[in-house]
Amino acid sequence: MHLNLGEWNELIERSLADPDSEPILNLERDEDPVYDAVFVGGGAGGRFGAAYMKAMGGRPLIIDAWPFLGGSCPHQACVPHHLFSEAAEELDRARWFSDELFYPKFDASRASILEMVKLFLAGRGSAHAFMNWQTKEQLEVEYVLNARATIIDKNTVQAAGKTFKAKNLVLGMGARPIDIDIPGLDLHGVFDFVSLVEELDYEPTRCVIIGGSKVAMEYGAFFHATGCDTTIVSRSQLMRTKALHHVDEDLRQYVVGGMRKRGMEILEGAHPVSVNGDERVRSVTVRLESGEEIDIETDFVFMGTGERPNTAHAQDVLGIEVNDYGRVIANKRMQTNVPGVYAIGDMIDGPMEMFKARKSGVTASRNIMGEDLEFDFSEYPDFLHTTYEVTWVGLTEEEAKAALDEVIIIQMPPYVEGLDTPNLPLPCAEGTMLYAFSKPELSGFQKLVIDGATRKVVGAHHVGYGAKDAFQYLDYLIHRPEGLTIDTLGWMNELFLNPEHFVQLSRLRAGKSKLIHL
Amino acid sequence: MHLNLGEWNELIERSLADPDSEPILNLERDEDPVYDAVFVGGGAGGRFGAAYMKAMGGRPLIIDAWPFLGGSCPHQACVPHHLFSEAAEELDRARWFSDELFYPKFDASRASILEMVKLFLAGRGSAHAFMNWQTKEQLEVEYVLNARATIIDKNTVQAAGKTFKAKNLVLGMGARPIDIDIPGLDLHGVFDFVSLVEELDYEPTRCVIIGGSKVAMEYGAFFHATGCDTTIVSRSQLMRTKALHHVDEDLRQYVVGGMRKRGMEILEGAHPVSVNGDERVRSVTVRLESGEEIDIETDFVFMGTGERPNTAHAQDVLGIEVNDYGRVIANKRMQTNVPGVYAIGDMIDGPMEMFKARKSGVTASRNIMGEDLEFDFSEYPDFLHTTYEVTWVGLTEEEAKAALDEVIIIQMPPYVEGLDTPNLPLPCAEGTMLYAFSKPELSGFQKLVIDGATRKVVGAHHVGYGAKDAFQYLDYLIHRPEGLTIDTLGWMNELFLNPEHFVQLSRLRAGKSKLIHL
Repeated sequence: MHLNLGEWNELIERSLADPDSEPILNLERDEDPVYDAVFVGGGAGGRFGAAYMKAMGGRPLIIDAWPFLGGSCPHQACVPHHLFSEAAEELDRARWFSDELFYPKFDASRASILEMVKLFLAGRGSAHAFMNWQTKEQLEVEYVLNARATIIDKNTVQAAGKTFKAKNLVLGMGARPIDIDIPGLDLHGVFDFVSLVEELDYEPTRCVIIGGSKVAMEYGAFFHATGCDTTIVSRSQLMRTKALHHVDEDLRQYVVGGMRKRGMEILEGAHPVSVNGDERVRSVTVRLESGEEIDIETDFVFMGTGERPNTAHAQDVLGIEVNDYGRVIANKRMQTNVPGVYAIGDMIDGPMEMFKARKSGVTASRNIMGEDLEFDFSEYPDFLHTTYEVTWVGLTEEEAKAALDEVIIIQMPPYVEGLDTPNLPLPCAEGTMLYAFSKPELSGFQKLVIDGATRKVVGAHHVGYGAKDAFQYLDYLIHRPEGLTIDTLGWMNELFLNPEHFVQLSRLRAGKSKLIHL
Repeated sequence: MHLNLGEWNELIERSLADPDSEPILNLERDEDPVYDAVFVGGGAGGRFGAAYMKAMGGRPLIIDAWPFLGGSCPHQACVPHHLFSEAAEELDRARWFSDELFYPKFDASRASILEMVKLFLAGRGSAHAFMNWQTKEQLEVEYVLNARATIIDKNTVQAAGKTFKAKNLVLGMGARPIDIDIPGLDLHGVFDFVSLVEELDYEPTRCVIIGGSKVAMEYGAFFHATGCDTTIVSRSQLMRTKALHHVDEDLRQYVVGGMRKRGMEILEGAHPVSVNGDERVRSVTVRLESGEEIDIETDFVFMGTGERPNTAHAQDVLGIEVNDYGRVIANKRMQTNVPGVYAIGDMIDGPMEMFKARKSGVTASRNIMGEDLEFDFSEYPDFLHTTYEVTWVGLTEEEAKAALDEVIIIQMPPYVEGLDTPNLPLPCAEGTMLYAFSKPELSGFQKLVIDGATRKVVGAHHVGYGAKDAFQYLDYLIHRPEGLTIDTLGWMNELFLNPEHFVQLSRLRAGKSKLIHL
């Protein structure tokens, strides 16, 4: 039975709406197969891992409790985040240009968190439908969906009333938001990124975010852009958390300063004491860095305190080892302490990002299929949204100066003291042209960090729009064995007006045998 | 005297306003220097060429008739185009979402070509100021501005009442829009991209564009987005002109179809016969492909018929040779037929794009300084705007199929027949999230063309937002000697949701020893 996208969407929506709905089976019609691997969890890692195994000639099976493949990303996490961040960018522009140019007077009453959640909910099924369709029709991977997997042993999984045998297990059950231990988190009006899309049923007017994670910044910037005044309560400085490495201080200042410029309140070094209310949230008590305790009135609390994987079942049945942070311990082949059992994605250490999820799934598959492949995700390009895209890779200026004899900085605005930068319309490119021409201080920041001795780029940092895609390639180029010199970069063919001006800025200095800043 | 940006801006504006204003001199105080090169024209090529020569230890001098460096790009060409294209993108979103979500009912009366021109004019001086400031303070290049250069011989140029001696001349005097030979182009209401920003003094209500160039498409998409109903009259099919190579047919259909979907009238195979009116433009007579002649009423005609370099002075004095299209003939070192005289940028053959302008200037300098360097711009990444960014590099599907035994296509929407793509929310990423969730047919198109035998990417094509920057690196990667295989691409670290999904789409197929489409 070959469903089209519309039919898949309908089946998925029906299954989600009815807890007693039937499992969705896409299985070949042979008796008692032994799979090369059963992927417990069909999220990003499981789906890509299984697809790769199948492409290599192996036989994988995916089992997922949800009626769709793709996991939490398109259902509750990165996809809604991107939708909300695009809204934040658009709302930000509409506010700055209110009643200027072609922008009408900004009408805050139209901007609604609830409406955006509804838009997401109305559309998310179509992404799910595509992944079910593609996985069956193009990738030819077998799956059992809408059925919770019960691991019996390391070669046996039950689901949908059937028993499946496999040579290997690949655990990709994802992670969930974690709460911290303060009173009041059970009140109505306390949300995390999951319950936001599943349960929001009113329009918040005032938001307190507990935590300083990427999620805190991203959702906070969105809430605030809709007109819901937002305070972030973070123990550490924003972007100075353990989870984010290589954040350049100038970039951080531009980003966090930009959030404050837009009216967000950011309390750093602040500890949440309690969430208060009767049935509904009324306020949050916060102990400031000074020691003073304050009450912030609010009708909406959002938890941005991180995530933790779902490991209990695998620990109980298989004896899988986890580390102090609750992540499954796996080597660079994604092998756990139990032979034949692999763990991938948000289950294991490292960034809870898409590239790691998918590539760890592929790494498990390639090892299962006999390749000897290690996946090292200690270095990678990273990003977050505020009302901007913020992207970085490699070393910060500070890290480079600690590691190298001679560090050259190439940046925009230029690396000089005392320039009247409010008169500087640069950087400018797609997405910042209107800012550059009338509010230049909003048009972004960009920086290259270069080893003066080898002339190699060791770090790149960007705030603006449209450069995120490029950082995938910059990451590859600077981390390949020969690296990326300012000479090679400066000789590339730029697509002016390029969102990051790295090619042309490099060219302006590459002629010098002894490099200097720009 | 070290002016800051604000002071530079003021000086430039004052100089532009007063035809009798003084030259702007930034010269070292020595007697009768002999420069390594005088750059006649301080546009993109002259400025980058001179900066590179100075960085290498040479002594360049730039002379320009305008009171600022950077040439036509920031004054009349690529920078206003980018500003207008950003407005077009924003207006397009505001129209599609009129009275939906946070977008108010679209008020066409606010959208104004004239207002956007005024915004540009108010801000362009600040970009000029930066280039004057940077060239003096950071790049330490000497210049004479606001003074027309008179070439005396190949070693002597006069300007600002002074005579300058040089070992070499580098000609970078740029290009100007060309008109075609039809009656009525002198009527009020006929513009090109130069006169648009310099002379527009009313709000057009109806536009006819003559020509099918990039400029025609880019400005046409902007005019139409402001509510000025636009008809493009083009002899050839859009994007099938000699000037644009490697345009994939599917991409072209998406782009041109998208323009039509927005209500633009595109007459291909149509010849302009005359522009009619008394003092002001009233209509354009067009001979359609069928032979029928029609009159299109309009108050605004825009010429998008290409550009031609300014060579007369150099031909007269130096005997520089030009080709049939009026371009100076230069070799890959930018040497003309006259020893010691180089030509760069829009003066010579090839795309009138920024990368060629700047790198040809640098090539001239590096050869003058003794390097033996050739610059081959026969292959390069290319782009244009409609209300989208459209970017491409390498071979089209059709070109690849003509050249290779086995061509594999990886694309989104998928390379299959009969899929109900109106239900497909992909591609989606920054800039297309809102479309993907409510008008998925507007969310873009992307395609990789792969040589099945070598597994190398031979072409990449994208319509959407946010991928332009990446194509600079894709161009480098696919054109380096070892190329870029689907395996290397598929193992990169994607920054999900990446505007082009090339990394992950490649990964879904890279496991196959014999590649198939996706």
